[in-house]
Amino acid sequence: MAWDFETEPEFQTELDWMNEFVREQVEPLDFVLGSPYDIHNPKNRKIVPKLQAEVRQRGLWACHLGSELGGQGYGQLKLALMNEILGRSHFAPIVFGCQAPDTGNAEILAHFGTPEHKQKYLQPLLNGEIVSCYSMTEPHGGADPKVFTTRAKLDGDEWVINGHKWFSSNARYASFLIVMVVTDPDAPPYERMSMFIVPKDTPGVEIIRNVGLITEPEGHHAYIRYNNVRIPRSHLLGERGRGFAVAQTRLGGGRIHHAMRTVGQVKKAFDQMCERALSRTTQGEVLANKQMVQEKIADSWIEIEQFRLLVMQTAWRIDKYKDYRKVRKDIAAIKVMLPKVFYDVASRALQLHGSLGVSEEMPFSNQVIDALRLGIVDGPTEVHKVTVARQVLRDYKPAEGLFPTGHLPALREQAIQKYGELLELEVSTF
Amino acid sequence: MAWDFETEPEFQTELDWMNEFVREQVEPLDFVLGSPYDIHNPKNRKIVPKLQAEVRQRGLWACHLGSELGGQGYGQLKLALMNEILGRSHFAPIVFGCQAPDTGNAEILAHFGTPEHKQKYLQPLLNGEIVSCYSMTEPHGGADPKVFTTRAKLDGDEWVINGHKWFSSNARYASFLIVMVVTDPDAPPYERMSMFIVPKDTPGVEIIRNVGLITEPEGHHAYIRYNNVRIPRSHLLGERGRGFAVAQTRLGGGRIHHAMRTVGQVKKAFDQMCERALSRTTQGEVLANKQMVQEKIADSWIEIEQFRLLVMQTAWRIDKYKDYRKVRKDIAAIKVMLPKVFYDVASRALQLHGSLGVSEEMPFSNQVIDALRLGIVDGPTEVHKVTVARQVLRDYKPAEGLFPTGHLPALREQAIQKYGELLELEVSTF
Amino acid sequence: MAWDFETEPEFQTELDWMNEFVREQVEPLDFVLGSPYDIHNPKNRKIVPKLQAEVRQRGLWACHLGSELGGQGYGQLKLALMNEILGRSHFAPIVFGCQAPDTGNAEILAHFGTPEHKQKYLQPLLNGEIVSCYSMTEPHGGADPKVFTTRAKLDGDEWVINGHKWFSSNARYASFLIVMVVTDPDAPPYERMSMFIVPKDTPGVEIIRNVGLITEPEGHHAYIRYNNVRIPRSHLLGERGRGFAVAQTRLGGGRIHHAMRTVGQVKKAFDQMCERALSRTTQGEVLANKQMVQEKIADSWIEIEQFRLLVMQTAWRIDKYKDYRKVRKDIAAIKVMLPKVFYDVASRALQLHGSLGVSEEMPFSNQVIDALRLGIVDGPTEVHKVTVARQVLRDYKPAEGLFPTGHLPALREQAIQKYGELLELEVSTF
Amino acid sequence: MAWDFETEPEFQTELDWMNEFVREQVEPLDFVLGSPYDIHNPKNRKIVPKLQAEVRQRGLWACHLGSELGGQGYGQLKLALMNEILGRSHFAPIVFGCQAPDTGNAEILAHFGTPEHKQKYLQPLLNGEIVSCYSMTEPHGGADPKVFTTRAKLDGDEWVINGHKWFSSNARYASFLIVMVVTDPDAPPYERMSMFIVPKDTPGVEIIRNVGLITEPEGHHAYIRYNNVRIPRSHLLGERGRGFAVAQTRLGGGRIHHAMRTVGQVKKAFDQMCERALSRTTQGEVLANKQMVQEKIADSWIEIEQFRLLVMQTAWRIDKYKDYRKVRKDIAAIKVMLPKVFYDVASRALQLHGSLGVSEEMPFSNQVIDALRLGIVDGPTEVHKVTVARQVLRDYKPAEGLFPTGHLPALREQAIQKYGELLELEVSTF
Repeated sequence: MAWDFETEPEFQTELDWMNEFVREQVEPLDFVLGSPYDIHNPKNRKIVPKLQAEVRQRGLWACHLGSELGGQGYGQLKLALMNEILGRSHFAPIVFGCQAPDTGNAEILAHFGTPEHKQKYLQPLLNGEIVSCYSMTEPHGGADPKVFTTRAKLDGDEWVINGHKWFSSNARYASFLIVMVVTDPDAPPYERMSMFIVPKDTPGVEIIRNVGLITEPEGHHAYIRYNNVRIPRSHLLGERGRGFAVAQTRLGGGRIHHAMRTVGQVKKAFDQMCERALSRTTQGEVLANKQMVQEKIADSWIEIEQFRLLVMQTAWRIDKYKDYRKVRKDIAAIKVMLPKVFYDVASRALQLHGSLGVSEEMPFSNQVIDALRLGIVDGPTEVHKVTVARQVLRDYKPAEGLFPTGHLPALREQAIQKYGELLELEVSTF
Repeated sequence: MAWDFETEPEFQTELDWMNEFVREQVEPLDFVLGSPYDIHNPKNRKIVPKLQAEVRQRGLWACHLGSELGGQGYGQLKLALMNEILGRSHFAPIVFGCQAPDTGNAEILAHFGTPEHKQKYLQPLLNGEIVSCYSMTEPHGGADPKVFTTRAKLDGDEWVINGHKWFSSNARYASFLIVMVVTDPDAPPYERMSMFIVPKDTPGVEIIRNVGLITEPEGHHAYIRYNNVRIPRSHLLGERGRGFAVAQTRLGGGRIHHAMRTVGQVKKAFDQMCERALSRTTQGEVLANKQMVQEKIADSWIEIEQFRLLVMQTAWRIDKYKDYRKVRKDIAAIKVMLPKVFYDVASRALQLHGSLGVSEEMPFSNQVIDALRLGIVDGPTEVHKVTVARQVLRDYKPAEGLFPTGHLPALREQAIQKYGELLELEVSTF
Repeated sequence: MAWDFETEPEFQTELDWMNEFVREQVEPLDFVLGSPYDIHNPKNRKIVPKLQAEVRQRGLWACHLGSELGGQGYGQLKLALMNEILGRSHFAPIVFGCQAPDTGNAEILAHFGTPEHKQKYLQPLLNGEIVSCYSMTEPHGGADPKVFTTRAKLDGDEWVINGHKWFSSNARYASFLIVMVVTDPDAPPYERMSMFIVPKDTPGVEIIRNVGLITEPEGHHAYIRYNNVRIPRSHLLGERGRGFAVAQTRLGGGRIHHAMRTVGQVKKAFDQMCERALSRTTQGEVLANKQMVQEKIADSWIEIEQFRLLVMQTAWRIDKYKDYRKVRKDIAAIKVMLPKVFYDVASRALQLHGSLGVSEEMPFSNQVIDALRLGIVDGPTEVHKVTVARQVLRDYKPAEGLFPTGHLPALREQAIQKYGELLELEVSTF
Repeated sequence: MAWDFETEPEFQTELDWMNEFVREQVEPLDFVLGSPYDIHNPKNRKIVPKLQAEVRQRGLWACHLGSELGGQGYGQLKLALMNEILGRSHFAPIVFGCQAPDTGNAEILAHFGTPEHKQKYLQPLLNGEIVSCYSMTEPHGGADPKVFTTRAKLDGDEWVINGHKWFSSNARYASFLIVMVVTDPDAPPYERMSMFIVPKDTPGVEIIRNVGLITEPEGHHAYIRYNNVRIPRSHLLGERGRGFAVAQTRLGGGRIHHAMRTVGQVKKAFDQMCERALSRTTQGEVLANKQMVQEKIADSWIEIEQFRLLVMQTAWRIDKYKDYRKVRKDIAAIKVMLPKVFYDVASRALQLHGSLGVSEEMPFSNQVIDALRLGIVDGPTEVHKVTVARQVLRDYKPAEGLFPTGHLPALREQAIQKYGELLELEVSTF
């Protein structure tokens, strides 16, 4: 046990394999296929399952899962290093069996599902045979579940769900949805909600429209109306009124994975920025020799390096403490920095590429929008800054007197108390 | 060998001892004594040597030195952790025998000094019996030695030095100066200078004035005129014309030490910021609950944590590679970030303390000026940004064609080459 | 003549009319028509000419033109106020007869065209019957015309053009192109290029592809190959080798117009940000009461207000000096700030709208990309910062001695010279 | 009435006179005298009254005062231009009879003082024969008067004051203090305080210590204890419980004056930065040619120019509306920007001057600290940002439906309603 900033050689071998496999086999998919979640699309089926089989054979399938679910039980630190590679391609997570939101949904089912759920939903999900959707946000509610209004009421042995959900990503491809719904409106705020599994083909599940980003050829974020959607009583996941607690299960290492995937993306943009700086000459001087370009490169390198270290330390702490509450500050900090670092580097890369950089012939515009998206999803940056501050302040207490404990006149006084006699100093009053 | 973010328990015990010793015994000295370098001042002598003896007894004296010089030969990583503690007090470095510029000057003497120099200058320096000065910058030359004009000419067996030097810190207390002087004005730029040892009492060494900062009660940065200063031929350190190479010896881990001392200072300011946020109520709400305050705390915590990790990784890399050239990028990056993090946190702490914060009753104004100073000494931030960029770009090469290697139309084409047949896609031209 | 920050009432009446006309009649076009430049599209023709007629009737058509070209000869200050309104809609400039690049191209034709050019190209352009393209940038050359390689050679009475041009916006809709081409490769850098008018249907004008931004449904920026394009000798605009000088004609007030159109866009985003802050409640508090939201609103308001004043002052100075060389600094400053203010406000508005904000159901993602585009077109921000600095420094000269003229010891000395005797002060030396 | 960015020639003549007078006669005083407020110091008396007489003769004495008080009744715009010049010297405000806090205190006395107060305190103040102090802040209360505890109780015909006040600037030189004290602790928060005039020599007025900034040779901000300070009933200024309302009188154009004085200071620093850029060569290139230097110059010029315009517009609006409530947003915005612009430019000037820049031989360290001070006094930046936001939001109202009024699907729908029939478009639902 002592500070170390290096990966052990055996695992580095796995990473090297992944690195090449992703570059050669997976990255090209982003150009020839549509959504990775469109898993039943015949084109996807022609290629993706074969690659997934290679990953399984290499023993790298769904590495986040414990051995009881057929995974490797890799800790967060190893997963972080893997995700740094997976981040380079939209298709990589699904090829390696670790795409959001299915990973989180699988965790919920593993913890709270009935044997039937596990057989019918969890197993096919783990096998990559189906995908799922997490349906929580409401159109008027943003990141604050306390104002949610979608309701479920018991009617005999069935729950009947009514209401709207917003930005339910990939609902269009999902076989089932995990939905957070108010069941006990009169309970205290954090005990009002329950979590349900809703098969997508249940009557009354209506996709009003699939909201898109400008970076998507078609929309992937469903605006859903639940019209008298009836599901069996057994589809309640966890206890009634415990929806929040169930939701916590999802978070797990997800933020770490997102962060390291972003690092992978950011490094790709950074590499392009550096290549450009050496390739383009203007006003008789290669860009690389211009100080404003050098500054962009230096600032980017530093931001990336610092951020990556923060993520790695957090992953290491999760593995060490095995208690997410002890790293809430660290995880929130990562969520704060992730969109900033991504935006900073992608926008600088864009700028150095000039009109080509802002065109759709380079990835930077998409990355900039993605960076802004990452500042919103899973809670906006503002919320996570508040979390960091609150967690930090738990270790402090207020000063007792009128002045701070570090008030220099008081410290001077104390120093004089200690050394004054020896030095024949006079004790002043203050 | 595997990622680890923790200090081994045995060394942590030493750090804990240091931490308490510095807090209880050393920090008060900053309030009752003048300059730590004024080592012959009777007041200093009443206290400092006793504390130095305690440090020696604990085996923590001059830990940066190799065992041949009576030190522990600690690597940079351990020294980093020690300096984080030493940074809390102006007196701590001298109490632990590792104050700049004496550490660097000692390294020069150890490498290039004659036995006589070692006996007469190095040993007393290592013993803490004298202090020294590094006299390099010239008033018109800033950080660029290529424009230096102070000359030494051989006259028989003596070198005769004439010229001006600027910001020769602590010359007022020094017993000798290490001076970089032009000896071969017609040689290529980096072979013009030589390094000399000049006893301070040599006739002709004239301190024009001691330039001060507004944070110093009296000036400590000498503006020196060398008027026909005659020194023996043997006072040349290293070869003639090799002054630059000799100077490199000085740098060693110094930047790491400075950086971690700054981390120590910054954390102190951060602690005060947090205490203040909990102690002060305004507009009916404790500061800690106001988002603009929370943001300051969150941003500061993240900046400090990230910067500290960057420094630790660099220290680890120095210990690993044992070759400073391999970490020039890392060291320059640290030098870039150090003044920024210090300024950011100190100025926020100042702001949260209101009028008290900007007064001399709190340390923040001094810290702000010190942060700005650190953005200039040892080369301005701009120079180090250029270094980071240049070092980064060594790992890249220009794109061969008109468009970048990451040009999406080309990548799409390649993907079609690979998967197109399988997917029955048409190859477009672009 | 005295400071005044108000529009005269008569012109304000025109602005009020424009404001309502644009909001009611023009802004809806952005939703039901394609490109404003696709002027021969039957859908466009059903609506646009009718609106143009209304503008003509109101006397607001092509107000930038002098009366000799049928315009109002409005100064830049009035045009600035008009463009602030036009900026709200993609269609507004074409409805008001002042869309780029046609305005600049018209200026070139008015100055350098033959009577035949004026009749055949300029008049239809002014009438809104055709649109044009400005074809200058080359794929390897970015903003630096000195590296251009597209060549024109005289062959009898014809110029024969060969080479590539990049990002020739709206070439797809243009009837003719104004092209900058090397005619004298051995001349000094700024005398190598000449300007030509090339009818789009000339054989050999080949659009390789229309490069798009991610914000455009289809690409509008042509990558053009000129393959032995033959044009009559008379199609040279201005003198041979004077292409740069001709290009300067284009700039005119264009930057002011762009800037104020951006102000119009930015204000729209700002209005939406403010509405949102009042409309959305989270964690039991309306966004408007949260300090992090208040800071976004305050910072945005200040940025917009300051930028708008800078643009207005510049417009006023152009009208006053009637010499663009006297406001190069001001114009470059505007170009620097424009993308920054736009990005800052649009990205904050996006953030406050959460997932809706980043979706294509709100305009903010498009605005963010547009802001980045504006940091590149017409010269990247970096180039304009250099211009500001160079222009500023023309008014300064170096200090004569070793120390600056504001060196405090010297000023103190001078003060003592002046008042010392009276105050019985001693003159120190320094 | 129409936009104009120029000063009328007659007033420009006055400014030109001031400019030279301040540069030649007043600026040197900063080097040879102590505090400008130490008006009875024999050295000050030897010079200052003579200069004040020149100012009076020129008709520029106390120009902020209305003619009833012997002033010119200049509006804020003219005062702004004057203060831009006065800002160059610490002594200039007192030489021109318009130093804070005496200007504000005089306004209070003019409005609320008895004839006796006016004769005894106001007139000598206006004559420059005495100076005064504003004593409001309390050590635990910062900028929030609602938590103040210093009490005054009526005892017969006398008020008896007890409590502490903090940062009562220039109390050491003042003849009287204007003090805000709780008289009605049970009233609503804004009706608890009253304003009093307290002669400094009243028994019980005890200066505990004069708190200093690190930029001051001696402290000027008194920490005062009021021990049973008895003053006549008539010393209540304005009505009992109306202390807040009385305090508002003080604000007047003060923020404008501070802002323009800061502009004066900032321009001075900017001039020095530019001179330096042309004077210093490093690495074979003059600083002025380095892009990182050019960026600092460009950014600074833009910041200064924009800020100055914002201040000028605000001054103009005050003169126009004659109602401070209509420009609260503008004034708060100025207060937000003032310390930022000052810090940015001063710290860049410092950086460009290297070690000389951070030394006490140049003014930049002092300016940096002064900039931080200006971010705190008269309410911290955070408070003023909140004010800007609140004032801005008064002009907006929440959206009525679930989606914003600018929701693109809705606007598209409206556009189709308007033009759809004409274009034969289908109305979609959304």
